[in-house]
Amino acid sequence: MNKMADFKEKYREYLSLLEEEIRQDWQEIPEEQEMVFSAMQYGLNGGGKRIRPVLCLAVCDLLGGDMKAGARAAYALECIHNYSLIHDDLPCMDNDDLRRGRPTCHKVYPENIALLAGDGLLNHAFALLSDRRAFAGVPPETQLCLLRELAAAAGAYGMIGGQTIDLLSEEEQEISLSLLEQMHRLKTGALIRCAARMGCILAGYTGEEEKIFEKISTFSEKLGLAFQIKDDILDVTGDEQVLGKPIGSDAENEKKTFVSLMGLPAAGQKLKELTEEAVASLADFGEDGWFLRAFAEFLLSRTY
Amino acid sequence: MNKMADFKEKYREYLSLLEEEIRQDWQEIPEEQEMVFSAMQYGLNGGGKRIRPVLCLAVCDLLGGDMKAGARAAYALECIHNYSLIHDDLPCMDNDDLRRGRPTCHKVYPENIALLAGDGLLNHAFALLSDRRAFAGVPPETQLCLLRELAAAAGAYGMIGGQTIDLLSEEEQEISLSLLEQMHRLKTGALIRCAARMGCILAGYTGEEEKIFEKISTFSEKLGLAFQIKDDILDVTGDEQVLGKPIGSDAENEKKTFVSLMGLPAAGQKLKELTEEAVASLADFGEDGWFLRAFAEFLLSRTY
Repeated sequence: MNKMADFKEKYREYLSLLEEEIRQDWQEIPEEQEMVFSAMQYGLNGGGKRIRPVLCLAVCDLLGGDMKAGARAAYALECIHNYSLIHDDLPCMDNDDLRRGRPTCHKVYPENIALLAGDGLLNHAFALLSDRRAFAGVPPETQLCLLRELAAAAGAYGMIGGQTIDLLSEEEQEISLSLLEQMHRLKTGALIRCAARMGCILAGYTGEEEKIFEKISTFSEKLGLAFQIKDDILDVTGDEQVLGKPIGSDAENEKKTFVSLMGLPAAGQKLKELTEEAVASLADFGEDGWFLRAFAEFLLSRTY
Repeated sequence: MNKMADFKEKYREYLSLLEEEIRQDWQEIPEEQEMVFSAMQYGLNGGGKRIRPVLCLAVCDLLGGDMKAGARAAYALECIHNYSLIHDDLPCMDNDDLRRGRPTCHKVYPENIALLAGDGLLNHAFALLSDRRAFAGVPPETQLCLLRELAAAAGAYGMIGGQTIDLLSEEEQEISLSLLEQMHRLKTGALIRCAARMGCILAGYTGEEEKIFEKISTFSEKLGLAFQIKDDILDVTGDEQVLGKPIGSDAENEKKTFVSLMGLPAAGQKLKELTEEAVASLADFGEDGWFLRAFAEFLLSRTY
């Protein structure tokens, strides 16, 4: 299928913009604190689908934004995402030994270095975003807008709030579907929406009042929730080899998931509906929206 | 002594600017994730001398910067400082139960919530600094400069790098005086210098090439190192009641300190010299530099 080939090629193109941005960083690493840099890079270079950076770059590209600034914003997003994974995996959090088929950061480095590496990546995201050289093609006001968007999505009103709800809900016998949705809207949804919105902002669409900003926000909100439902489904139906982690762990840990609350068929139905709604919100972009549509369908049908 | 009364009054004035800025924040706290906000506030409201915010405000005031923006920058600094304390106290780091006479954050809240509260404060610092309303009196370029300064001081090239050296040096039998200095230059010095520099930047002095920026940088570098040496001395000679923490813990934990490496008399001599050098670097400011001079002397003679 030609469309699939085009999608994969474009995906690789966005990925290589990100990888190049990462590679150009980390030139001068002080010897005395080399270990924390090494742990930060271990977290960053763990692979994964890189959906947040790709989403940011795809929206930026669609709307004609500066792709050099886009690559930098994409990198900052990936720093935030990977810091949250390192901290989530720590013994006092999920205590996970494996992530994407590799030992987690605190299994390779001392636990305290892993904690600091997470802090380092969180901080580094804001260092990257506040550097003026990478954003030379963008007005300073726009750059501040990117910083606000990321800080809002990553903080206690966003992702950290979702992680908090997750931890507290583990102690509950059951939680409502609406609290589960709220948790995921914050825990994974906020940063996915932020990625898409940063693409918008880079192209000069910065406000809630603008129709394009609103459409892209809706698209990414639906996509973010769909992404999480798919994750929950894969934990039941996925292939361990392909996923790079054991399946059935949600059920074993008595985690509240869309599958445990709704059952597998209803969760599958909701995933399909959300994907359709996400795609529908791209209608105004016509043919230009092809990559984002294919992206939504890729996330729906993914096996990892 | 009148001078001391003036100093205390001015100190209180700066403190109240900070406290008001903190109080105005935290208006809308979402119920579901209330616990992480509560833990963040517990960390923030633990008292302490607030030397970073006071230093930032004093330099901003001296150079005629916007004090409203200064209060916001001061608050961001205090968020970074307190996140680092919460993470430093965690079981995988220093495993401390007490800080400033109170139970540490993870003794009051679950350990995972304390971890997230630290992350939340780190993130919040950048949210505060990227908000445009608080910095209405400052050009957007200047605001970006503040963000860069903070991210550089707090990150792996700054404070986190110092924490890394600290952790790794614990495993060494002995370390050199120059590595000890390097560790403290990063671990505590970077953020103290950043506080002073942010005061400069707020007043429009943003570059290394400017003499005022250079003088204030020198002042705060000397001050930061002196501050740490005083800390090490107080751990030997201090009063537990006044300090709010047990003394002798450095020796007990075989920590490398200026006292353990140089001996008490030489450490005291170095503290005195650094304070004199700090004060000397303020010569150009004449009488206007009175508060910063008194501040350096206060840090020298403090008993807590």
